[in-house]
Amino acid sequence: MSDHAPSPRLAILGGGQLGRMMAFDAHRLDIAPIVVAPQEAAPGFAAAKPIPLDFDDAALGARLEAEADVLTYEVEHLPVEAVRALGERVPLRPGIRSLEITGDRLLEKQFIASCGLPLAPFAPVDGPEDVDAALAVTGLPAILKTRRHGYDGKGQRRVSTREEAEAAARELAVPSVLEGFVTFERELSVVAVRGLDGEVRSWPLAENTHRDGILHVSVAPAPGTDGALHARAEAKAKRLMEELDHVGVLTVELFDTGEQLLLNEIAPRVHNSGHWTLEGAVTSQFENHVRAVCGLPLGDTAARGASVMINLLGELPPREALLAVPGLHLHLYGKAPRPGRKLGHATLCADDMGGLREAAARLPEALRAPTLAALA
Amino acid sequence: MSDHAPSPRLAILGGGQLGRMMAFDAHRLDIAPIVVAPQEAAPGFAAAKPIPLDFDDAALGARLEAEADVLTYEVEHLPVEAVRALGERVPLRPGIRSLEITGDRLLEKQFIASCGLPLAPFAPVDGPEDVDAALAVTGLPAILKTRRHGYDGKGQRRVSTREEAEAAARELAVPSVLEGFVTFERELSVVAVRGLDGEVRSWPLAENTHRDGILHVSVAPAPGTDGALHARAEAKAKRLMEELDHVGVLTVELFDTGEQLLLNEIAPRVHNSGHWTLEGAVTSQFENHVRAVCGLPLGDTAARGASVMINLLGELPPREALLAVPGLHLHLYGKAPRPGRKLGHATLCADDMGGLREAAARLPEALRAPTLAALA
Repeated sequence: MSDHAPSPRLAILGGGQLGRMMAFDAHRLDIAPIVVAPQEAAPGFAAAKPIPLDFDDAALGARLEAEADVLTYEVEHLPVEAVRALGERVPLRPGIRSLEITGDRLLEKQFIASCGLPLAPFAPVDGPEDVDAALAVTGLPAILKTRRHGYDGKGQRRVSTREEAEAAARELAVPSVLEGFVTFERELSVVAVRGLDGEVRSWPLAENTHRDGILHVSVAPAPGTDGALHARAEAKAKRLMEELDHVGVLTVELFDTGEQLLLNEIAPRVHNSGHWTLEGAVTSQFENHVRAVCGLPLGDTAARGASVMINLLGELPPREALLAVPGLHLHLYGKAPRPGRKLGHATLCADDMGGLREAAARLPEALRAPTLAALA
Repeated sequence: MSDHAPSPRLAILGGGQLGRMMAFDAHRLDIAPIVVAPQEAAPGFAAAKPIPLDFDDAALGARLEAEADVLTYEVEHLPVEAVRALGERVPLRPGIRSLEITGDRLLEKQFIASCGLPLAPFAPVDGPEDVDAALAVTGLPAILKTRRHGYDGKGQRRVSTREEAEAAARELAVPSVLEGFVTFERELSVVAVRGLDGEVRSWPLAENTHRDGILHVSVAPAPGTDGALHARAEAKAKRLMEELDHVGVLTVELFDTGEQLLLNEIAPRVHNSGHWTLEGAVTSQFENHVRAVCGLPLGDTAARGASVMINLLGELPPREALLAVPGLHLHLYGKAPRPGRKLGHATLCADDMGGLREAAARLPEALRAPTLAALA
């Protein structure tokens, strides 16, 4: 094995299911995963060496310097300065700029605009006094969103009048962004990956359906999309990644208006709408992220047939009922149930959309209706 | 989650790559894996709670009783009495009889014969004095194999004369079995699984090529086989599993003589010739073993296209060279290199055999020739 490079040790900041699934794929490549999370118990600790420290713990830098060769993150809501300091001790991929920008909705939108990519009108709102100026940009209705720490519909208020907008600004009471409403036909996402050498690949588009602001169902490849639409989406992701010098996976959520692909959000990481790649693509988003940040060649992102991914939110159907569904691939995250919480996901694969509909008809009742609706 | 059964804790006896891959799939089902192995470091410890104790350690039974709900094994060469005692404290699946019989070549062959299934002629040889009587059964040439602890071609001597047979018996110096030679067209294996409720499923047949007595390449579904041949092989596996009241995966290696399927060996576990199921089948052998021993419904064993699995033996090509092969699925076990040692495997999948040959043509040189030969 003289010519087999020693195995890099990969530290993942964040202890959720994304790091957990990344760790499984890292093991397969003989890359030893470490998971850093402030909790005592975290889904990501299951299959990795745990470091249960706060991200700004004074001891963390020295530990990572001693124990890790590469540093990555599975969540964008991290203390930027603490991560910057860690990245000065261990190579951080994606870099600090991807984190800094996507961890703040205003910076993110300004960045998207600076890349010349289309998005809904937006304006900063630091308090009720900014509402009038912001509404002049966005019109009504609009959505007020906190700049930081919002995800899965948290920290958002839909407003239909000036008074509602002011009330929402008082209520959120933190720096926020007002977004104009856009009319769109559907929500798509493109999960893309950029290697250390700058090579970019992306998986086929996913079409996403939400429930209460949380991703519920993803279908991939998105029905009725062609290579041209995928190429347009990939070009946007590529532009953003190159501008950020991003290494690893980056996900772009898009509003398909029929004429345009408007950028909704960027996630500098593997994404829930890419979970279908575990069984539905040749190489999963998790494996390609690990490959990219460790400087390894990227894997094939082609789809294997058609897939539908359903999130298991809030409570789990009995495991037996899920596993009795022919061809269902179950992924549980080892999390305690809580309303709206992502506890796991299930993926069905088939040769084509017709096969997917047949498979979905056998799902337990609670999952069947939303899945069939997404496949309609 | 009131109706979601609590997660069973699954303890795996044996710390090799089979338990390691079982543990990955267990996590996905939110079944907490524990790996028991006498080593300080074992491939199986990577993604499981390690119990680094000897199988006959006096403390092990109490620990497993406290920490595990179900007990299984990933290797048949275990101290039977120690495992029997553990199985009296925690439900052991497969049961002790599967272990007892397959851990001893003579008992195994006698068991196969007692089930009315065809195999090569055999006779026990406890020492040189038994050679004449054994040769009367087997004829020459023949192979002398130790009854216990032989695997991957270890503990075997091929003999062409009576004198060689006597010398081999003196050399091995342990209870052995003499096997007659059979002429066969190819080696096949069937990996089957039996649920706690007695349901039996099996994956498509694999065609296996060995190198120096060690499995090297498996192609699945075995080229040129039809449903009838698969049904015949599955029926044999089913007969054995029912007789053993086996729960979990069991693998049967077969000699295909063109007219008959002669039984070569039984493994009471997931098997190297079933590694292709990780990407090449809807449900992997590892997941279905976990499902079976935990009393969960079995998953679909259908193939997804055609697959070829290549073992990485003795030394590893550079990781970069492997990962640069389009569509290659890499599984490394975290083991130090040693001549002939199974360090990992790689799987290629395609729609059909033609696609597999195209994919295999891009393998690094050392892997290309044996793979293309297996696909010829």
